[in-house]
Amino acid sequence: MPELRRDPITGRWVIISTDRSKRPTDFVRESVQIKGGGACPFCPGNEAKTPPEILAYGRNGSGRNTPGWSLRVVPNKFPALGIEGGLDREGEGLFDRMNGVGAHEVIIESADHFQTLATMPSKSVEETLWAYRDRVLDLKNDRRFRYVLLFKNHGEAAGATLEHTHSQLIALPIVPKRVREEVDNSKRYYDEKERCIFCDMIRQEMETESRVIQVNDHFIALAPYAPRFPFETWILPRQHSSAFENMPAPYYENLAKVIGEFLTRLDGALLRPSYNYVVHTSPIGEEINDHYHWHIEVMPKLTKVAGFEWGTGFYINPTPPEESARFLREAK
Amino acid sequence: MPELRRDPITGRWVIISTDRSKRPTDFVRESVQIKGGGACPFCPGNEAKTPPEILAYGRNGSGRNTPGWSLRVVPNKFPALGIEGGLDREGEGLFDRMNGVGAHEVIIESADHFQTLATMPSKSVEETLWAYRDRVLDLKNDRRFRYVLLFKNHGEAAGATLEHTHSQLIALPIVPKRVREEVDNSKRYYDEKERCIFCDMIRQEMETESRVIQVNDHFIALAPYAPRFPFETWILPRQHSSAFENMPAPYYENLAKVIGEFLTRLDGALLRPSYNYVVHTSPIGEEINDHYHWHIEVMPKLTKVAGFEWGTGFYINPTPPEESARFLREAK
Repeated sequence: MPELRRDPITGRWVIISTDRSKRPTDFVRESVQIKGGGACPFCPGNEAKTPPEILAYGRNGSGRNTPGWSLRVVPNKFPALGIEGGLDREGEGLFDRMNGVGAHEVIIESADHFQTLATMPSKSVEETLWAYRDRVLDLKNDRRFRYVLLFKNHGEAAGATLEHTHSQLIALPIVPKRVREEVDNSKRYYDEKERCIFCDMIRQEMETESRVIQVNDHFIALAPYAPRFPFETWILPRQHSSAFENMPAPYYENLAKVIGEFLTRLDGALLRPSYNYVVHTSPIGEEINDHYHWHIEVMPKLTKVAGFEWGTGFYINPTPPEESARFLREAK
Repeated sequence: MPELRRDPITGRWVIISTDRSKRPTDFVRESVQIKGGGACPFCPGNEAKTPPEILAYGRNGSGRNTPGWSLRVVPNKFPALGIEGGLDREGEGLFDRMNGVGAHEVIIESADHFQTLATMPSKSVEETLWAYRDRVLDLKNDRRFRYVLLFKNHGEAAGATLEHTHSQLIALPIVPKRVREEVDNSKRYYDEKERCIFCDMIRQEMETESRVIQVNDHFIALAPYAPRFPFETWILPRQHSSAFENMPAPYYENLAKVIGEFLTRLDGALLRPSYNYVVHTSPIGEEINDHYHWHIEVMPKLTKVAGFEWGTGFYINPTPPEESARFLREAK
């Protein structure tokens, strides 16, 4: 019998479809292959092919926009938003609009074209996290922005257009709908119980164990109770922490290890699948709070999402999270 | 300068990205090709390959589960939900679950393997709509159900696994999140203004004209102000109507014509793209109301949706709706 499960944070119901259940190995599709060759604009020596760098790590005296870096942040060459100008909010009858003001940046995570977050040294993953933080803190000074979205598309099926490992950042003058909803729902829960709903969830998952994938001192990776997609995974700080960019310094090393280890498991279990991840954190101006718990949502791209998911916010997931968690726990 | 636009019904902001703007012709990807051949379980003569029929139109005395029909409704052979049993709602600590009880049916819209809703006679499209209604009315008698989802996946890229033209229906014991949200937001608007927000929108769009694709006596097809996807189109009754299945009989012919004509435009403009559509209607038990306005959302599958859309409910659309509406108006 299939099961209907409700995500306690968003209130979304999903079908965990056991009859049409797929075994993890049924999902193995095209592996992400890094081919190399061609003139990669993210490779050292090609710095002139990107807009001038905003930030670089690892330079030992090498000049800006020249080789010698270990991580580099540049503006997206084809930005979805423009950095100049005012918002000019206005109504058009029923409708609301504003200028598409924002920042769109690319974090080039390694100088080595053939590395991924799963294969690079943990120190390099950690650098990526520090770069996320540095950029968020800088962009928060711009009073036009209300949210900084950090995300990664890995592999062509996940929307990556360049194979050289990179993340993206979009600073927005609005709070995305899903984030607003999560924060508001968490606030409601807190108002009622004076506890963070994510903290409660982590406690319950640690006891239940069946959906836990891995744990270290500061972080937990788990398959959520009502996942939208097979192998959807959330990585959360075990202690309450409301904003990614305010995480204590010792956490970075730990988070880098969890991410690296989890992505290595994923590569092993599903033969290097495409995936997306998104950092969910508190909006700007409400970073310090007791109700919202920042986390990373990882979504491997394994199934084709059909029509009614888009239209309805209602999902059919052919793999129970207990099964995907077990498979990932045992992987590697 | 790109623009940020807010959908008044859901509150969702989208980027209408003009800089990375794509011309409609940039989107032409793989056309849906109906190849035929093979033993199609939806073709006449193969009735035994589907579960026994629930409903058939057009039989002139031919027996059940034999050829002679013009439209046929059968249970999905691989249902996402099970029809038997009670809901057994229960909590697991923080979490909520119930049995995956529901109906999952397939509406085979034509006996002819090579027809589509764009090419078949308008009378056959109308039959499909009557079948939608008949099945919804029947399933509403089952007190376990709260919503009947009607949708169509056309083409492989849209998730169709069989090419013979068909729609699907899923009866659910819950109201999908997005629908619940739309209904609640519309209710809030009505409580404030005593007007339906969709009726207001239709009036404004008829005046503005730039996003209107086609209009007939009872229906309008338009590109919404803040579409998530290029060429996203909504088809709405022009007069207030809160539930699809309660639409007056004379509307069926009109709706069939709008759907057929719109899909023909789409086929012409974008060379037979894959698409999904979903009927959005009032939940069971609250069908008659002044605040919610049923409609159909059509989403051509043209762009790859990247990671952050899933994580955030925030979309980047490279085609302004004014441009897609103009292109579709001029098509054919």
